[in-house]
Amino acid sequence: MNNNYKSKVKNKIRIIPLGGLGEIGKNITAIEYKDEIVVIDCGISFPDADMYGVDLVIPDVTYLLENRDKVKGIFLTHGHEDHIGALPYILKQINVPVYGTRLTLGLVENKLQEHGIMADCTLNVVKPGDIVKLEKLSVEFIRVSHSIADACSIAIHTPIGRIIHTGDFKIDYTPIDGQVIDLERFAKLGGQGVLLLMADSTNVERTGFTISEKVIGESLNKLFQKADGRIIVASFASNIHRIQQIANASISVGRKIAFSGRSMERISQVAMDLGYLHIPQESIITVAEIHNYPDEKVTIVTTGSQGEPLAALTRMASSTHRSIEIQKGDLIIISASPIPGNEKFIYNVINELFKKGANVIYNTTEEIHVSGHACQEELKLIHTLVRPKFFMPVHGEYRHLKQHAQLAEKIGMDPANIFIGETGQILEVSQNECKFAGRVQTGAIMVDGLGVGDVGNIVLRDRKHLAEEGILTVVVTIERESYSILAGPDIITRGFVYMKESNELINEARDIVRKELEQCLNNKIKEWAVIKSCIRNALGQFLYIKTKRRPIIIPIIMEI
Amino acid sequence: MNNNYKSKVKNKIRIIPLGGLGEIGKNITAIEYKDEIVVIDCGISFPDADMYGVDLVIPDVTYLLENRDKVKGIFLTHGHEDHIGALPYILKQINVPVYGTRLTLGLVENKLQEHGIMADCTLNVVKPGDIVKLEKLSVEFIRVSHSIADACSIAIHTPIGRIIHTGDFKIDYTPIDGQVIDLERFAKLGGQGVLLLMADSTNVERTGFTISEKVIGESLNKLFQKADGRIIVASFASNIHRIQQIANASISVGRKIAFSGRSMERISQVAMDLGYLHIPQESIITVAEIHNYPDEKVTIVTTGSQGEPLAALTRMASSTHRSIEIQKGDLIIISASPIPGNEKFIYNVINELFKKGANVIYNTTEEIHVSGHACQEELKLIHTLVRPKFFMPVHGEYRHLKQHAQLAEKIGMDPANIFIGETGQILEVSQNECKFAGRVQTGAIMVDGLGVGDVGNIVLRDRKHLAEEGILTVVVTIERESYSILAGPDIITRGFVYMKESNELINEARDIVRKELEQCLNNKIKEWAVIKSCIRNALGQFLYIKTKRRPIIIPIIMEI
Repeated sequence: MNNNYKSKVKNKIRIIPLGGLGEIGKNITAIEYKDEIVVIDCGISFPDADMYGVDLVIPDVTYLLENRDKVKGIFLTHGHEDHIGALPYILKQINVPVYGTRLTLGLVENKLQEHGIMADCTLNVVKPGDIVKLEKLSVEFIRVSHSIADACSIAIHTPIGRIIHTGDFKIDYTPIDGQVIDLERFAKLGGQGVLLLMADSTNVERTGFTISEKVIGESLNKLFQKADGRIIVASFASNIHRIQQIANASISVGRKIAFSGRSMERISQVAMDLGYLHIPQESIITVAEIHNYPDEKVTIVTTGSQGEPLAALTRMASSTHRSIEIQKGDLIIISASPIPGNEKFIYNVINELFKKGANVIYNTTEEIHVSGHACQEELKLIHTLVRPKFFMPVHGEYRHLKQHAQLAEKIGMDPANIFIGETGQILEVSQNECKFAGRVQTGAIMVDGLGVGDVGNIVLRDRKHLAEEGILTVVVTIERESYSILAGPDIITRGFVYMKESNELINEARDIVRKELEQCLNNKIKEWAVIKSCIRNALGQFLYIKTKRRPIIIPIIMEI
Repeated sequence: MNNNYKSKVKNKIRIIPLGGLGEIGKNITAIEYKDEIVVIDCGISFPDADMYGVDLVIPDVTYLLENRDKVKGIFLTHGHEDHIGALPYILKQINVPVYGTRLTLGLVENKLQEHGIMADCTLNVVKPGDIVKLEKLSVEFIRVSHSIADACSIAIHTPIGRIIHTGDFKIDYTPIDGQVIDLERFAKLGGQGVLLLMADSTNVERTGFTISEKVIGESLNKLFQKADGRIIVASFASNIHRIQQIANASISVGRKIAFSGRSMERISQVAMDLGYLHIPQESIITVAEIHNYPDEKVTIVTTGSQGEPLAALTRMASSTHRSIEIQKGDLIIISASPIPGNEKFIYNVINELFKKGANVIYNTTEEIHVSGHACQEELKLIHTLVRPKFFMPVHGEYRHLKQHAQLAEKIGMDPANIFIGETGQILEVSQNECKFAGRVQTGAIMVDGLGVGDVGNIVLRDRKHLAEEGILTVVVTIERESYSILAGPDIITRGFVYMKESNELINEARDIVRKELEQCLNNKIKEWAVIKSCIRNALGQFLYIKTKRRPIIIPIIMEI
């Protein structure tokens, strides 16, 4: 009886999202059954505007480290940064086999080489349709459409039921590579019974269907046929199908293609090497060679579709690109949407390009970009094919998850079987029951330069304070014996006021400090901490009255 | 002959945009004819993301100050911040009469009182259709539709021709107050001949027509009829017509209305006092009184539609509002679009509201907001009615101005007669000619707390650097005579690394400084500037190798 109860308790699957729920990016989910853990994806997220100076954010995988022996591998849905970007950091902590399709692992390889850990890692190439058999779990890759080639959903077959994690996906009936999403497999698994569905919520706010990538090709063709100057197209380097269509449009009007920007050169090379991007060698030229061809025979494919400060298109716009100068007659196509938060950057670039006499086509004016994520009607289709017992929306902020839950409910799912989780929250699934059951440690680890995790909340709070109010340092040297001021107080500020024009304010501030200090010394206050606090308070009050600002004040007392 | 030539040269109008061209906001334009200058609008802009700590930005009006005697008045098109917000600052510098419609001046009055200068200012109320006659120029107010009541275009009648400045406008055939845009007047002036048109470019990227404000009323009614809990609507306080429709929907289902948020309370009061907002007194309750009514009888109209950190809705979302707690069953309607750059803030608020169990309706999910600006078809209509000789697009970034120029060209205007100007660039118009003719001093003056203009580019550059990399201060006390180190070097950092966890790094840094310093002292280098620079270089290099970061380094040498 007791035994039976125990085995019953143990006969369950634990879903542990270590990132990607209640946030965009940093996708990583652990799925645990008895002594086996499989991890789906291992992505980064980009820092919020208030994460000053942070380069990228990786997940806290303490739970995986604590269960190191159970972790059988990391299974990748596709090669976007928010799904593979944290691999180099995580593999350094826990070196397990990595599974993914060819293009996905091609991109991973590149990353691991940059971090100098490629030789130590085990990458296993799978094809859509493949099933990786572990001792108790089997992991199946199912082809889907997305804005990068070779993307897959993942089905996990467990002794107590099937779990499907869609990864990022959309349904494109006319994909560029002809590799249509494997709806049949979703339907078949649905028929056999799926215990839990986890599905992409990114575009749940959008009605209808995402337009096929092929439509972009038609828009590009029209633009290319009319153009009589150079054409410069900015896109995501990883959007291989888009690059293919730009190349096709170029070739059809006899243009040569040059790739500009580090990631564009790198990823297009990987994609060509692996056979995902097909461009005849004679159509490709280097950026240095563009001057050998008339303008109307040149297409430049470039990074910078988000207005990133160091990207090639941004450099062209600000006349700081090494070899490409924007000229009157250039047609520039921004074949991407601004990621929320990037709007101002890309619009600045567009303004500058217009000012230089180029014509700029961007998302608000033509149909030159489609999303990689499923809209409402596509989501309804997947839900209907898979017919899961339980459902947990993934990949999205809370509003996305909530609306995805509402969508599932609208098409007939029992709300009691829908679970809106959070990163770190364990979802426990058995054959007949699904419930939240505790939490594990997770979080956002910030990477700044070489530092992984050494920038924490205190440093960020200081950076925010510094950014908004600046800093004021007061230094004074005091003699221990006589208890008298030997030098100073000196005041140095940064980011507070322009000192040359605020002499008077700084002089007054110095007087305030001196007065406060003398009072402390006269009163025989010996604790530097108390004296510093007196200085900080008196000065802070004075400055606030004068300026309505509160700079960080750092009193430094040198004792000799 | 000579005289004739001279008078000919003088017989021209100078259009001097002091803000609002090539930027969103900070709208102010001087129009000069002989010894008369009229100024249209006097707005602020909101700081860009890289203007750390800046509260708002006002125009540099040096040109007006230099021509103080000529300035006859400031004529306001409507009461939005980007058209009136800089008035208190500018009137302190140059006190001239202000002209505007009743609601516009009602809002101005409020501002001037806050700055304590109301008594010194001259506000002249005009009605749409009124003409203010100066000695040589006449200024006419023409009714238009916009997202605030009582908005006008301005026509300036000069001895050599008419100029029309649309201000912000759209064409709404069914406005809430029944006051339809005076298309007849535009047509009549067009028939008499208009020398120069300056027209709003904000929505030039959008095809079609802006939907009528009335449509929002229908959406609101539907939502109100279904709701059975509290309704909380966030909107711009200045959008009086929206507030009216929210009030109407509330009253139609027997709900009381409470206003929450400082600007919402203030502006709705002004609008009611002046007769622009009609709500029966018995339908209005205070926020404190909402608890006296059942949930289904309460509507709260609140600020915070942009996720502003201190606004009422943001406080409700973060459970820091003094008296309103979000509860399950609340229906929250965000009746506004995110201004570019605010997306993340408002989405954070929406996520939190959902988490608290409220249902949130926002722009991506229902038709609950329309723009206040003319789309392409509306612009074409105004151009066609006015048929100007010359055209200068205004109110927009360069991309907007460029596309507005292209729109004018498409409907038949000679591109030689279209002028894309910049803030500060003078456009000189005579009866037969229009051309750019030089520049005047202008720019963005940053307001931070009480400081107007004391935060400049150097301070901003420092704030950016501080925000991204932090600061490291090195202090050392040296004896002048013996030329030896008496105390230190001490190192203090903020926003660089978390010091408690980076002891080793800081200790090594201290060693580097000591070594560098001793070397300098041994070599009898006496210039502190040289020594500081040595320290800065050695330390900077060390930290960059160790962390790939470049904090601001401030060496302070105290000499006794």
